Amino acid sequence: MTSHEFFMDLALNNARAMKGQTDPNPLVGAVIVNENRVVGIGAHLKAGEPHAEIHALRMAGDKAKGGTIYVTLEPCSHYGRTGPCAVAIVEAGINKVVIATLDPNPVVSGNGVKILKDAGIEVIIGVCQEESQQMNEVFNKFIVEKKPFVTLKSGTSLDGKIATRTSDSKWITSEEARVDVHQLRNENMAILVGVNTVIKDNPELTTRIPNGRNPIRVIMDSTLKIPLESKVVKDKKAETWIFTSMNYDKEKWKSLKSLGIKIFPIADFVDPKEVVKILGENLVSSLLIEGGGSINASFLENKLIDKVILYFAPKLVGGGQAPTFLEGEGIDKMRDAVELKDTSFIKIGKDFKFVGYPIYK
Amino acid sequence: MTSHEFFMDLALNNARAMKGQTDPNPLVGAVIVNENRVVGIGAHLKAGEPHAEIHALRMAGDKAKGGTIYVTLEPCSHYGRTGPCAVAIVEAGINKVVIATLDPNPVVSGNGVKILKDAGIEVIIGVCQEESQQMNEVFNKFIVEKKPFVTLKSGTSLDGKIATRTSDSKWITSEEARVDVHQLRNENMAILVGVNTVIKDNPELTTRIPNGRNPIRVIMDSTLKIPLESKVVKDKKAETWIFTSMNYDKEKWKSLKSLGIKIFPIADFVDPKEVVKILGENLVSSLLIEGGGSINASFLENKLIDKVILYFAPKLVGGGQAPTFLEGEGIDKMRDAVELKDTSFIKIGKDFKFVGYPIYK
Repeated sequence: MTSHEFFMDLALNNARAMKGQTDPNPLVGAVIVNENRVVGIGAHLKAGEPHAEIHALRMAGDKAKGGTIYVTLEPCSHYGRTGPCAVAIVEAGINKVVIATLDPNPVVSGNGVKILKDAGIEVIIGVCQEESQQMNEVFNKFIVEKKPFVTLKSGTSLDGKIATRTSDSKWITSEEARVDVHQLRNENMAILVGVNTVIKDNPELTTRIPNGRNPIRVIMDSTLKIPLESKVVKDKKAETWIFTSMNYDKEKWKSLKSLGIKIFPIADFVDPKEVVKILGENLVSSLLIEGGGSINASFLENKLIDKVILYFAPKLVGGGQAPTFLEGEGIDKMRDAVELKDTSFIKIGKDFKFVGYPIYK
Repeated sequence: MTSHEFFMDLALNNARAMKGQTDPNPLVGAVIVNENRVVGIGAHLKAGEPHAEIHALRMAGDKAKGGTIYVTLEPCSHYGRTGPCAVAIVEAGINKVVIATLDPNPVVSGNGVKILKDAGIEVIIGVCQEESQQMNEVFNKFIVEKKPFVTLKSGTSLDGKIATRTSDSKWITSEEARVDVHQLRNENMAILVGVNTVIKDNPELTTRIPNGRNPIRVIMDSTLKIPLESKVVKDKKAETWIFTSMNYDKEKWKSLKSLGIKIFPIADFVDPKEVVKILGENLVSSLLIEGGGSINASFLENKLIDKVILYFAPKLVGGGQAPTFLEGEGIDKMRDAVELKDTSFIKIGKDFKFVGYPIYK
């Protein structure tokens, strides 16, 4: 680890510690170093409050002069509550700016760097770039595409099964893995399942951790066959949005409406791209898909999955008829399988958590 | 790590280094310590040659007197080429014997310890016991049950698929994982597939690594429909044994016999227990199963799989009709899934290698 990486790592750690409290702003951390000593640290704590650089500059005071600032995201160039950070850095007499990654928003990307360079400050870009981009993966997508960052989550046996041939699915994974899933729900603005999951399991789809935030519950239901007594319809623990086709049951629509359910009839029901687009328009920046094999496959086939999280229980289920977490039509040639990058496995309780990012051709 | 564990670990490392060269004997290592200094190290190198303790005692010479010997397996009590190791230890004036695990053979287990204790030597049993037992897992089973240690191996996508819906399977896993599979073949005395794999893929089922040993190729083929021009029938690169039913094609039998193929007609063809029993009677101590979903399931359902090794390619295949590596009838209730213990995941190239041991109820 170089000293640049060491200080950027500290900035990244401070940034990550604020996960969940900066929305809709990204996580950002900053560290100021002068004569090899840290003279200031900062992080963006809350939307509407100062940016990370401002906190760090205030802590450093006069010692910022001649120093180096490490910042996990390009300093901003816009006049917000605390003025452009790039200008504040110039005014503080900083000598060198080390940036993990440029602003993902193409409209402003590079503008902060330009202000710094125009003032004669040395700028280094790209130290710990991947870590910084991953930390704000949801923000980075939403700010550019105005569509949610979509995570596919499944709990599966080693042989890919999510239930037995008789549809028995309780429980595949361990308590520890299920707690981790609730953390995922806490981090996502919406969670999506098919109506058959609602009919079969009658899930709450809430976040069962202390101070957890419940995601908006999004149900795919072409005819509005969802039972009125379902927990997601009745319990008021979170909003429930239903995506349906143009052929929906108009009487049912009235009953659901009166219970406060939001209904989106979409023209081409089989196209999940439409669902993702509408969610984005409704400012949903992150979506967790916990569907069965068909729903999961329809989102993957439409190249809508940004991240895959699988909890593998160390179990073998077997059965040629037992459902796997990815069904649908499938591909003909193995070379057309969707590969995943930046993959990892970690142990959670008895289970193994896999994380990877699909690469679409 | 205690000092007992430190020295036993050294003994284990030396033992493991001889993997593949001690058959049919187990791997054994020994370390002699006197006044906190290592005065002798030894390992069993080859069947017919001295045991680990004898090598270590010879190296230590007079310095064995009053010392402690660490040995990964209980010293033997039988009069072989170099006499009972337990007696040699007594005669060398060793003070203390630390043993990882007792002899797995119930007929002699504990006899070595008795000789030592009768001579007034302090004996500690169980230091690094699991590591030692795992190192000789094949030997330990075969010596007791006279049946091969059975490993199920599969290369799979994350969703459990071993091919697409059109049966295209080349390639799921990376080159690195395939090299690891050849190492597995090198370590196993026999490899088993179904005749459909032979017809579809025409595999060699050989070990393609330098100085690799080819396993005996065992084919399950109820009617002897194996093509005479198959590589496993024609290439003479290793023995090929065919297990067939009583309804086999008698003419085909003659042709195969004349090509040097060994044929075992078994009464109850659907019972893989019979196959494993006969392999054991023919001194096959280790069997690698590389079957399709049906063969794999039939061995698992009969509780014959001792170890499971899966290579997960970071890929998604999908398809409700695409085959998984475990099919068959399957179970009704999730609670009846076969759990695995002592599980691990390591990265091999782009892929992840899972290892676990089934726990049968």
